[in-house]
Amino acid sequence: MLIRTLSTLECTKILTANRVGRLACAKDGQPYIVPLYYAHADNHLYAFSMLGKKIDWMRTNPLVSVEVDERGAGRGWKSVIVNGRYEELPDRIGHKVQCDHAWSVLSKHADWWEPGALKPDTPSDTEHLPHVFFRISIAEVSGREAVES
Amino acid sequence: MLIRTLSTLECTKILTANRVGRLACAKDGQPYIVPLYYAHADNHLYAFSMLGKKIDWMRTNPLVSVEVDERGAGRGWKSVIVNGRYEELPDRIGHKVQCDHAWSVLSKHADWWEPGALKPDTPSDTEHLPHVFFRISIAEVSGREAVES
Repeated sequence: MLIRTLSTLECTKILTANRVGRLACAKDGQPYIVPLYYAHADNHLYAFSMLGKKIDWMRTNPLVSVEVDERGAGRGWKSVIVNGRYEELPDRIGHKVQCDHAWSVLSKHADWWEPGALKPDTPSDTEHLPHVFFRISIAEVSGREAVES
Repeated sequence: MLIRTLSTLECTKILTANRVGRLACAKDGQPYIVPLYYAHADNHLYAFSMLGKKIDWMRTNPLVSVEVDERGAGRGWKSVIVNGRYEELPDRIGHKVQCDHAWSVLSKHADWWEPGALKPDTPSDTEHLPHVFFRISIAEVSGREAVES
């Protein structure tokens, strides 16, 4: 296998082309990974989630890591790692535009992989459900590709 | 989608049936995820790696999380999360048996997914390469399954 480093542009393309990654957060030195259903736009990964352990942890410590990979030809693969920061998008004046943006990006895709994501009919319905809209602001991105030699 | 909790036995079966997961470690509150090529045996996940960031971090803070998932029928999926502890298996008297065990479990599988894993011919060859054998001692395991309703 030949391993090479991906450029930032190549990493961005992989983030944009995929919808499922893995998110790690950490509390008191203990990491916690969960699958993440996301949409990439404007240097952010947008997602939503039911309230629970990962939201609690990210509210306490917003530093996160996200990994997205895809298979290549044969045994080949590509893997992208994001270091970023959790940002909650509360439904308040001043954040409405961001919520609507997250909604429009995510709602293009019917497959809600995220276990806690019961799909509401419209963004406004989510006000009555314990969902949290959030985004990961991408601080650093790096990636590698393995190609069968 | 109907979501249900997996039993410990079901989680263990998924860990045993798969070879690729994602490992998260953390340093100073910053998590870091990488793909992990592993073999499950005796309540441990065995793996090896070139020296680098993840080994440095796990030597400093041995608390890790590993996530393994598989697709089910339709949009269904299963996901298992392990909380555990990094344990290095140095090639010294007293650890030889564990190294040989890790080797025999991992070498059953020809697909070395891990980028840093140049496959040596025999376990003894690894003495001359900057590889680290390690295992994750499983402290807690939990899992969920989503079935299309």
